[in-house]
Amino acid sequence: MPDKISFSSDYTKGAHPRILQRLSDTNFEQMPGYGTDDYCKSAADKIKKACGKPDADVFFLVGGTQTNQTIIDMLLKPYEGVVAAQTGHVAAHEAGAIEFSGHKVLTLPSLSKANEDDRAGEAVYDEQVGKIKASDLRALISGFYADDNHEHMVFPGAVYISHPTEYGTLYTKTELTEISEVCREYKLPLFLDGARLGYGLMSKRTDVTLADIANLVDVFYIGGTKVGALFGEAVVFTKGAPTTHPVPIIKQHGALLAKGWLLGLQFDTLFTDDLYFDISRNAIEMADLLRKSLVDKGYRLYIDSPTNQQFIVMEDDRLKELASHVGYGFWEKLDETHTVIRLATDWATTREDIEELMKWL
Amino acid sequence: MPDKISFSSDYTKGAHPRILQRLSDTNFEQMPGYGTDDYCKSAADKIKKACGKPDADVFFLVGGTQTNQTIIDMLLKPYEGVVAAQTGHVAAHEAGAIEFSGHKVLTLPSLSKANEDDRAGEAVYDEQVGKIKASDLRALISGFYADDNHEHMVFPGAVYISHPTEYGTLYTKTELTEISEVCREYKLPLFLDGARLGYGLMSKRTDVTLADIANLVDVFYIGGTKVGALFGEAVVFTKGAPTTHPVPIIKQHGALLAKGWLLGLQFDTLFTDDLYFDISRNAIEMADLLRKSLVDKGYRLYIDSPTNQQFIVMEDDRLKELASHVGYGFWEKLDETHTVIRLATDWATTREDIEELMKWL
Amino acid sequence: MPDKISFSSDYTKGAHPRILQRLSDTNFEQMPGYGTDDYCKSAADKIKKACGKPDADVFFLVGGTQTNQTIIDMLLKPYEGVVAAQTGHVAAHEAGAIEFSGHKVLTLPSLSKANEDDRAGEAVYDEQVGKIKASDLRALISGFYADDNHEHMVFPGAVYISHPTEYGTLYTKTELTEISEVCREYKLPLFLDGARLGYGLMSKRTDVTLADIANLVDVFYIGGTKVGALFGEAVVFTKGAPTTHPVPIIKQHGALLAKGWLLGLQFDTLFTDDLYFDISRNAIEMADLLRKSLVDKGYRLYIDSPTNQQFIVMEDDRLKELASHVGYGFWEKLDETHTVIRLATDWATTREDIEELMKWL
Amino acid sequence: MPDKISFSSDYTKGAHPRILQRLSDTNFEQMPGYGTDDYCKSAADKIKKACGKPDADVFFLVGGTQTNQTIIDMLLKPYEGVVAAQTGHVAAHEAGAIEFSGHKVLTLPSLSKANEDDRAGEAVYDEQVGKIKASDLRALISGFYADDNHEHMVFPGAVYISHPTEYGTLYTKTELTEISEVCREYKLPLFLDGARLGYGLMSKRTDVTLADIANLVDVFYIGGTKVGALFGEAVVFTKGAPTTHPVPIIKQHGALLAKGWLLGLQFDTLFTDDLYFDISRNAIEMADLLRKSLVDKGYRLYIDSPTNQQFIVMEDDRLKELASHVGYGFWEKLDETHTVIRLATDWATTREDIEELMKWL
Repeated sequence: MPDKISFSSDYTKGAHPRILQRLSDTNFEQMPGYGTDDYCKSAADKIKKACGKPDADVFFLVGGTQTNQTIIDMLLKPYEGVVAAQTGHVAAHEAGAIEFSGHKVLTLPSLSKANEDDRAGEAVYDEQVGKIKASDLRALISGFYADDNHEHMVFPGAVYISHPTEYGTLYTKTELTEISEVCREYKLPLFLDGARLGYGLMSKRTDVTLADIANLVDVFYIGGTKVGALFGEAVVFTKGAPTTHPVPIIKQHGALLAKGWLLGLQFDTLFTDDLYFDISRNAIEMADLLRKSLVDKGYRLYIDSPTNQQFIVMEDDRLKELASHVGYGFWEKLDETHTVIRLATDWATTREDIEELMKWL
Repeated sequence: MPDKISFSSDYTKGAHPRILQRLSDTNFEQMPGYGTDDYCKSAADKIKKACGKPDADVFFLVGGTQTNQTIIDMLLKPYEGVVAAQTGHVAAHEAGAIEFSGHKVLTLPSLSKANEDDRAGEAVYDEQVGKIKASDLRALISGFYADDNHEHMVFPGAVYISHPTEYGTLYTKTELTEISEVCREYKLPLFLDGARLGYGLMSKRTDVTLADIANLVDVFYIGGTKVGALFGEAVVFTKGAPTTHPVPIIKQHGALLAKGWLLGLQFDTLFTDDLYFDISRNAIEMADLLRKSLVDKGYRLYIDSPTNQQFIVMEDDRLKELASHVGYGFWEKLDETHTVIRLATDWATTREDIEELMKWL
Repeated sequence: MPDKISFSSDYTKGAHPRILQRLSDTNFEQMPGYGTDDYCKSAADKIKKACGKPDADVFFLVGGTQTNQTIIDMLLKPYEGVVAAQTGHVAAHEAGAIEFSGHKVLTLPSLSKANEDDRAGEAVYDEQVGKIKASDLRALISGFYADDNHEHMVFPGAVYISHPTEYGTLYTKTELTEISEVCREYKLPLFLDGARLGYGLMSKRTDVTLADIANLVDVFYIGGTKVGALFGEAVVFTKGAPTTHPVPIIKQHGALLAKGWLLGLQFDTLFTDDLYFDISRNAIEMADLLRKSLVDKGYRLYIDSPTNQQFIVMEDDRLKELASHVGYGFWEKLDETHTVIRLATDWATTREDIEELMKWL
Repeated sequence: MPDKISFSSDYTKGAHPRILQRLSDTNFEQMPGYGTDDYCKSAADKIKKACGKPDADVFFLVGGTQTNQTIIDMLLKPYEGVVAAQTGHVAAHEAGAIEFSGHKVLTLPSLSKANEDDRAGEAVYDEQVGKIKASDLRALISGFYADDNHEHMVFPGAVYISHPTEYGTLYTKTELTEISEVCREYKLPLFLDGARLGYGLMSKRTDVTLADIANLVDVFYIGGTKVGALFGEAVVFTKGAPTTHPVPIIKQHGALLAKGWLLGLQFDTLFTDDLYFDISRNAIEMADLLRKSLVDKGYRLYIDSPTNQQFIVMEDDRLKELASHVGYGFWEKLDETHTVIRLATDWATTREDIEELMKWL
């Protein structure tokens, strides 16, 4: 039905054709429910192998907020909260799903402005935006324990990071390692939200691999919804699940899909012949082309993002015009006359799409 | 992968081919997220028309427990509980999802044994099993208000029924009307769980239509997961939603699907050319054939179910043998040497499937 | 202000004068907050000694519902519920406080009617009313684990009993031992609500001692509110608390009293020179006198209660008359023309009070 | 038992002797439970009169965190959060009690440092510390509604302020009025935590009266625990309660005291002959004396507090020495060698106490 091209997000299209094909091929196979089927097992095996973690536990859930809520609730004791960037999805954009399950989000600053004198091009924010710092994390935790009144406060019980972040930025391997070390020192599980993980792993400007993540965090998820699946997120507990009864916990959160094999089948496809990585790379290449085109045309970047989400500053007048030709994502008002918009590429974006977009910019 | 036929449940297969076809046809159309797309609108319009309720509000959620939890939480005030049959899904088989969101399930009896002298054939239970009675409901509510201490008790705040019930039974129009009248008298919203609604509506032994339900309840859902969709439940608030902000409530429950159009598209297909009703009718015809075959072979019915779920009593020895040829659903142990099993037909069951099954029975 | 005598409950008066005296004596001593003071320590030591449990952890909370909610939440994992009698306070009369904290109450039957042919006097209920049976408990738990679908159900995670029960009845030592054995076999903590514990321990018809309870249960509380204190319940975790951080959990439930020493001071007084036991004995002696007087006058007992709560069946006409002279507790309507009322004695009831009451009966 | 004087907090002593006397005088009067007694009614009437709000609803709860949690839960819809200063008690020091009941705390900045060039004496913070600003509040709310994605965020649903704040500071009448106007514009209830209200009202440096508060906020409470009562907080819904069933909500939070009259009796005493105001004035006079003495001795104030809590900066070496003679409240580490401590006066502090303290400072 929609009649114009859109870069508003990376969840505007269906699924990679190979996934649709397999859904079709297996449509009348009869499967046991709730993820107990062989496709889930096969997908889990492939993921564990790709991570180099044969002892991991892998679950498949439907969407991002649901996954964040369920995992965080599994990780925390009742009197604990989760530490996250103030801009983290769980802190800002999940309608209070974490608090709904009884836990506070303890926030760390993550909006470091670019230094005026020494910044990449004209980006408003530097590459730290959206990220937490190991030093801030340590300060929060050690400050908590140093406070004589801390038994009256919410205990930090787990740490949440997103990679890529909501701003498209990436942790370096050094940064991830430092955060991981703080977590291990204080015995706090580290949880990495990988709703866009493929786009982080395939960035030209990252030194972080899937195996690195599996080594450095306690639990993460491999996003499918935004990376080629119809829907679905693959949760990997790298050292095994923190509970002997994940099923009732998942069900209690309304997150147990009856036809669980639909999730297994999709991830089995994505982790066959490196499909997940190949389609992620496409999004990166298209984003790099887009960014270059934008900079060439003199657009001011909001941040010099190394992944599939690009953010630019637009004059409000020109934005109105753009809106009639191209879909984009409203990000925030920068000032009285400017707006920040998001342009996201994805696993299916083509060179022609970029050219069409640039025609209107 | 599975190599044997299964009647274990009605969620063992994918989706009706027309749904897969449309997913494929629209795969690269770019849609806005979270159910704001035109397919959701179209599906909602068709459903409202089918119900005769132009002012209804229609939402699409992913699965049954999630839907029950979210709707009940929308209906209740914090100090209220939901009234349900002791055998209701929300009371017995949702891992405490209702309590997880802070509410008690107030139960009514629903396991009336068949009268030994006057019962249909040899069924263990009569056709009331799984259902609540208007008289019991009235007694609970009026008893509550008559109790001087009721401010220290959980207030009945909504009424939950399933149709078909978990036992495959159906309310008559008279029964539904009576329950509805009690609810209206006490101003309690009536919620009908229609996870298998199609199979109830197409039963040969029902006088209840979709329009009847829409007239008699405040909210119900039309099950897709078990009736031809890949997944999805269409919630119909017949007089409009009970909140001006359903989106954050849905999201808070982890129930807001990013690619909401996947749900709209499926229900739009199911409610085009009466597909939902036609495929539901198939399940009923196959169930009727199955029941007749079972009775002819001398099997004792657990209940003379008028819908797609059939329950029979099996000797444990013979059950073990059956298990190697056919999938079935364990229901409960009847006594030391007998087990009740469930055999469910669905939208895709064929006459050949029944014949294959009967070979082993 | 009230101008008539009342037997409506055991929480109609202030505190034993020795408690008021000590509050007065210590009024200007300056204490550290939140139960970290020496009076709490002293009270805990005396209680541990009285229980014969030097390694117990003792906490002081303010009221019954608060205590039940906080303890049960400490004992349960998120996917677990608490098993209780259908008539248990947590199941029926706490406005959903257990569900508010996310847990289901799994109920067992507890309303066994007296056998018409063989019952004590004319009591409507026998001495089992309000109690659970070890056999029912075992059946619930083993049935749960035998059910193939139990991962979709609420796990039994702890067992709640009250002693005396809400009906004034008492477990025998044998019954308590059997229940305790089932709990240990399935590794479920056993929690005994002792809101009226003193009246149970001092009953003439009990073989259960404080040490027995401390040996047989995992956590219980010694009720103060109804037994001589202004307010307060002393929680005893007989083998130590189930969490290393009880303080934030208690505070999260709004149950951490700033001036915690008020609780310690009261229990220190009650457990000095056997005051708790002496005043409890008074209530029992007065209840025995009351019951004898009632039976002599031909009143029908609702149950032949061995503790401080007595229940009788009254004609509605005579009840109206009584109401203008004496306070009583409405219990329930028995039939069209009869009502069950509760008459409770307490630590301060006098022989003159009973005589005054009997004048009107 | 304690053998040294303490200024650590304002909840280190029992109650005003008139309260103990009345508890003693009424000890054997028999009262109905749960706040339905005449003392609660009388106290509520006196409070309504003192506030000039005959139509207010007044409830009595036991402690501060419990009161904050219960009221906020009454005010909010499930998808709403409460706006508070980052230093507000509900945001920082209640062990997550608000999140435990499902709601997010949306924070505003409140730590404005004193301007180096133009500040009162040597205080580290200016008199704004601990307070929110109407302009920040408006920015948060209008920013929320201006955000296209706000349906995915937590809605601001009520505003919480404390007066005095946790730092002893006070809102001016103008500031309160501005905040109240923003709340009314956006139809958000304004809730004022008055745990130390008396000390705010009796400050020499305030223009805010009890009637002003009752006019400007929707609900507030008059703290008893810290102002002369044994325990208890009087909640005033100035325009009536937001629910027709406050009792089950209060009980669900474990906050319904069985012997509710203990609260009524205390507040009835405090609001007889202006006792509450007189004893509050004493704390202020003693705090003013203390502050003057501290400044005279050259101590650096952390903030020039106009109420009963005084904060000073101490060298760590001297602090250790002080600790053996006087109780004080640890507030926070200022730097490597300095600590901020709190010294609180209260309703019972005497001139001799101050002199004794100053001996050691």
